[in-house]
Amino acid sequence: MRTFRLVIACPDRVGIVARVSNFLTAYNGWITEANHHSDNQSGWFFMRHEIRADSLPFGLEALRQAFAPIAEEFSMIWRVTDSARRQRVILMASRESHCLSDLLHRWHSGELDCEIPCVIANHEDLRSMVEWHGIPYVHVPVDPADKQKAFAEVTRLVHEHEADTLVLARYMQILPPVLCQDFAHRIINIHHSFLPSFVGARPYHQASLRGVKLIGATCHYVTEELDAGPIIEQDVVRVSHRDSIDDMVRLGRDVEKMVLSRGLRYHLEDRVLVHDNKTVVFA
Amino acid sequence: MRTFRLVIACPDRVGIVARVSNFLTAYNGWITEANHHSDNQSGWFFMRHEIRADSLPFGLEALRQAFAPIAEEFSMIWRVTDSARRQRVILMASRESHCLSDLLHRWHSGELDCEIPCVIANHEDLRSMVEWHGIPYVHVPVDPADKQKAFAEVTRLVHEHEADTLVLARYMQILPPVLCQDFAHRIINIHHSFLPSFVGARPYHQASLRGVKLIGATCHYVTEELDAGPIIEQDVVRVSHRDSIDDMVRLGRDVEKMVLSRGLRYHLEDRVLVHDNKTVVFA
Amino acid sequence: MRTFRLVIACPDRVGIVARVSNFLTAYNGWITEANHHSDNQSGWFFMRHEIRADSLPFGLEALRQAFAPIAEEFSMIWRVTDSARRQRVILMASRESHCLSDLLHRWHSGELDCEIPCVIANHEDLRSMVEWHGIPYVHVPVDPADKQKAFAEVTRLVHEHEADTLVLARYMQILPPVLCQDFAHRIINIHHSFLPSFVGARPYHQASLRGVKLIGATCHYVTEELDAGPIIEQDVVRVSHRDSIDDMVRLGRDVEKMVLSRGLRYHLEDRVLVHDNKTVVFA
Amino acid sequence: MRTFRLVIACPDRVGIVARVSNFLTAYNGWITEANHHSDNQSGWFFMRHEIRADSLPFGLEALRQAFAPIAEEFSMIWRVTDSARRQRVILMASRESHCLSDLLHRWHSGELDCEIPCVIANHEDLRSMVEWHGIPYVHVPVDPADKQKAFAEVTRLVHEHEADTLVLARYMQILPPVLCQDFAHRIINIHHSFLPSFVGARPYHQASLRGVKLIGATCHYVTEELDAGPIIEQDVVRVSHRDSIDDMVRLGRDVEKMVLSRGLRYHLEDRVLVHDNKTVVFA
Repeated sequence: MRTFRLVIACPDRVGIVARVSNFLTAYNGWITEANHHSDNQSGWFFMRHEIRADSLPFGLEALRQAFAPIAEEFSMIWRVTDSARRQRVILMASRESHCLSDLLHRWHSGELDCEIPCVIANHEDLRSMVEWHGIPYVHVPVDPADKQKAFAEVTRLVHEHEADTLVLARYMQILPPVLCQDFAHRIINIHHSFLPSFVGARPYHQASLRGVKLIGATCHYVTEELDAGPIIEQDVVRVSHRDSIDDMVRLGRDVEKMVLSRGLRYHLEDRVLVHDNKTVVFA
Repeated sequence: MRTFRLVIACPDRVGIVARVSNFLTAYNGWITEANHHSDNQSGWFFMRHEIRADSLPFGLEALRQAFAPIAEEFSMIWRVTDSARRQRVILMASRESHCLSDLLHRWHSGELDCEIPCVIANHEDLRSMVEWHGIPYVHVPVDPADKQKAFAEVTRLVHEHEADTLVLARYMQILPPVLCQDFAHRIINIHHSFLPSFVGARPYHQASLRGVKLIGATCHYVTEELDAGPIIEQDVVRVSHRDSIDDMVRLGRDVEKMVLSRGLRYHLEDRVLVHDNKTVVFA
Repeated sequence: MRTFRLVIACPDRVGIVARVSNFLTAYNGWITEANHHSDNQSGWFFMRHEIRADSLPFGLEALRQAFAPIAEEFSMIWRVTDSARRQRVILMASRESHCLSDLLHRWHSGELDCEIPCVIANHEDLRSMVEWHGIPYVHVPVDPADKQKAFAEVTRLVHEHEADTLVLARYMQILPPVLCQDFAHRIINIHHSFLPSFVGARPYHQASLRGVKLIGATCHYVTEELDAGPIIEQDVVRVSHRDSIDDMVRLGRDVEKMVLSRGLRYHLEDRVLVHDNKTVVFA
Repeated sequence: MRTFRLVIACPDRVGIVARVSNFLTAYNGWITEANHHSDNQSGWFFMRHEIRADSLPFGLEALRQAFAPIAEEFSMIWRVTDSARRQRVILMASRESHCLSDLLHRWHSGELDCEIPCVIANHEDLRSMVEWHGIPYVHVPVDPADKQKAFAEVTRLVHEHEADTLVLARYMQILPPVLCQDFAHRIINIHHSFLPSFVGARPYHQASLRGVKLIGATCHYVTEELDAGPIIEQDVVRVSHRDSIDDMVRLGRDVEKMVLSRGLRYHLEDRVLVHDNKTVVFA
C-alpha cells in the first residue's frame, strides 16, 4: 500500500494537530498511522502521519504545495515523502562481512525497502558476496598517507549515484568533516559499543578491560565529532568472565547487525526526527 | 499537573482525528500526550488524549457533555477521566508478600497514583506490613467447603469502599463469575507464567517439567475463564538447568512484581483499551 | 587450539569428580574448561571437560579406551569428541531463506565450525544462494499425497553423506517417526513460538489472536511428538498492538535466526546433554 | 542445607582440580555445586565448591587447617565459609527508599540470607520503615563542611557491629579512602548508570542529554576511585524520546533494585572473586 509520510517538527503550541488533521480531512486523507510527541524540555512538538496515497486527490508535489502555508504558519521543519519512491542507499564496508551480509539479505528478501546502487569498500574481500546480489562493488582503497584521494572518489560516487543515504556497515574509516556536513542526518554508522562508553578504537578490548557485564552496539548519525552523533538505536547482550575478547566480538556481531538493521529501517521509513543532537524515533 | 484523559475506541473512518482535535482546539485545549492506533484487522480506531485541565474553560462534567455529540456521531466507546480524581484500588492478597509489598512501597513513595481503601486477604500473615502503611487490613478467610460466604463479604467490601479497581496480588483464589462480570476490565491479576503457557496451578512446576529456558509472568484482566482474559503486560527472565523450582519461584517473583506494577500503572493512567479480548496499551 | 571434549552423565555420588580429574591429571591433561551440574530432583550428575589435545600423550581412541573402565564403574552415559573432527551437518529448508542464510553466513565466515555436505530443500527457491557458498543443493520435493518417497530419499541422502546432525531451518515438514528415532538428539528444529505456547501451524497467528506482549522462538531436538522435544534454547522479542501479524513474522525472523544459531552452536560444541526430555546446556 | 564454600584463585597449572577433588573425596565430601574458570589472558584459575557440611567429618576450622597445605602448594588466594554463619551487613541509605525497601523486604521474607545489625543513614526520612523491620536505625548526619566527623562515626559503628559487608543503597556520599581500603571488596555500591558511562552525579540527566536508548545500573565494589571499582552486576531498561528525566528516574529505580539485590546475593553466597579490578561471578 503506497503512503505519503508527513513528518513535522515545530515549536509547540495549541492547534497544530487540529490544523494538520483538518487539512488532511479536507482532502479525505486516510491516516494509517499517526504519532505525536510534545517535548516538555525543549518546548518542541514532533509529528508523523502516514496517509494512504490513493485516498488523496493529488500527488506528492501537490500535497507539498498545499501544505506549505500551514508549515510556514507554524514555523515547521518538515518533509513529505512517498513510500513508492525508494531511497537510494550506498553501503560502505571494509573486511568484516556480518553487517553487510545481514543488510544484503534483508534487501534481497524484500524486508529492506530501498535501492542499493552500489557497495563501496576499501578492500576487495566482499566483492563476490555483493556481486551475487546483483549489486556493483566499487573498491576504493584508502591510502593511510593520503586519505583525501579516496574520499574524493567516495564523494564522486555518492553524487554520481544520487545517494540519499550512506550506511557505514563496519566501514572502519573516519569520513571527512565536509562529507559529514553535506550528508547531515543521512550517514548512518554502527559503533560496536554501548555509547557513550568506549568511543573510538577497539571497544570490545576496552569493555573486556573494564569488566562490564553487558556489551552493546549503537546505531547513530555521523557527525564531525567521532561517535558523538544523534543515537537512533542501541541494544546490549549479556557477557560474563567466561567470555574472552573473541567471544565478545562474536556476540557483539549479532547485536551490531540487529541494531543497524533496525536503525536503518526506522530511517528509511522516515521515523527518525533529529533535534538537539537527539532523536525522536516513532518506531 | 492536572490532566483530563479522553480515551476513545470506535469503528475507523476518515475525519475522527480532525473532529476530536478541532473540538479540543476550539476550547484551546493543550494536549500533552496523544496516541492513535488504527487496527487493520478489526477496522477499529483507538485514541487517547491527555489534556491540561487548566487549559480548558470548564471542568470534567462539562467536557463530557460537550463531547457527547461527537462520541455519538462516531459510535464511540469512550471515557473522560480526571488525573486529580485518584482511583480507589483494593488490593487482594494471600500469604505471599512480594507483589503486595512492592505495590505498597510504590504507593507509599508516591509512584503509584491511587487510593487504597483497604487490603483484603484470606490469611492474617500480611496484616502488620499493611497496617504500617496506614491501610486497613481486612481478613476474609475462604472456607474451601463454602467459598460463597467469603465472596459475598468481598463483594460487600468492594461496594462499601466504592472500589474502582481490584488487584489480585497473588490472591490465589478464583473469583466467582458474577464478580468478574460486574467488574469487567477492572480486576487485574498477575499470573506467574508466560501465558498462554502453564495456565492454572503451579506454573513453575510445569515450567520446570517442560524444561523451558525462560520463565515469565502475565498481568491480565480477569474474566470468567481462568487465565484467559485480555493480557496487559508480560515479561520473562532467563533460567537454566541450574535453577531448581525454588530458584524459579525466586526469580519469578521479581518478574511478577515488575509486570504487575507496570500493568497496574497503565490501567490507572487510563492507557489500556480492551477490544476483542486483546488490549491496546498506549504505554 | 584442538581439544577433546569429555561429556558425562551418571547417577550422582561422591567421588566422580575426583576420579575423573585424577584420570586427567595422571596423563597431564590440561583442562581449558570444566562444567559440573548436580541435579537434585533426578539425582543425576552431568559434567563436561574440554582438554587440550596436545597436553595428552595419546589420541582420541586411546583416550576412550583408557577412560572406559571409569565410565563403567560409575554407570556413565558418556562421549569423547575431538574438536578437530568437524561434524557433518545437513541443513534442510523450504522457501523461507532467513534461517538458512544466517547459518550459511556464519559457516562461510568461519563462526560455525562444521561441514555442510549438502542442503536439502523441498523447493527450488534457495538453490542459487546455497550454491554460491559452494554447497550442493538437493531438491527433494514432497508430494502431499505420498510423503514416503521424499523421506526415503532424505534418509538415503543422510546416510550417503554420513550426516551427524540434521538442522531443520524452517523446513516446514514433519519428519517420519523412524527418522526421529534413528537420529534422536541429532535433529534440531527451530519452532517460531515460545513453546509450549502455540504448538503446530501458524504460531504468529495464534499469538496475535491471544494478544501476547512478547513473541518467541524455540530451538529443540525433534522427537516423534510434534514440538515436544527437549528444548535447547529460547528467546523472545517485545510486540505491541501496533504489530500486525506481518510485523510479528518479521520480528520473529530475527529471534528464530538467533535462537537457532545459538542452539546449533551449543550442539556442535557438545555442550548439550539430554536427560528426561530436558537439556543441560553448558553454555 | 548447611554447606561449606571453598573459594579459590591461583595461577593456573595442571592438577589443581585433581588435588582439590581428591582432598574432598578423601573426606567423603558431597559437592553440591562446582564452578571452574581458566582465564587465558591472565593465566589464573578460579574455583568455587559448595560442599554439604554434614558429609564432612569435621567443622569449618578443621577443614581450613586440612586444606591449608594444598593452598600453599598452589599459591592460592582462598577462603572457606560456612553457609550457617550469616554475614553481618550494614545498609547505608540517604533519602531515597527504593533500594533500601527492596533489600529489607527480601531480608524480611527470608530471601536474603544475612544479618542486618543496623541501617546507617544521613537523614531521618527512612527511620520508621527500617524500625518496622526490627532493625536499629542510626542517623549519622554528614556536615558538608566537615565530613570527617560523620565518617569517623560510621567507621566506629562498622567496627562496633562487626560488619562483614557494607551496602550503599543509594547512600549518595563518597566514603573516605581509608574506609575503602580497609573494606576492600566488602563495600557494595549501586550506581544509577550503565558504567563506565555517566560516572558521578546526576547520571539520568547525563543520559537524557546524550539521548541514549537504554539506561542502566551498575553494582560494584567501592574503591578509592569514584565509580571505578570491580563491576559485579549490570542491567539496562529501554527508554525513548517519550521518557522525561523523571520517567528515567522512575524506570531506573527498578533496574537499580534488581541489580543491587542480585549483586548482593552473589556476594553473600561467596560467588564473587575479584582479580585485576574485574570480577568472576559464579552465578
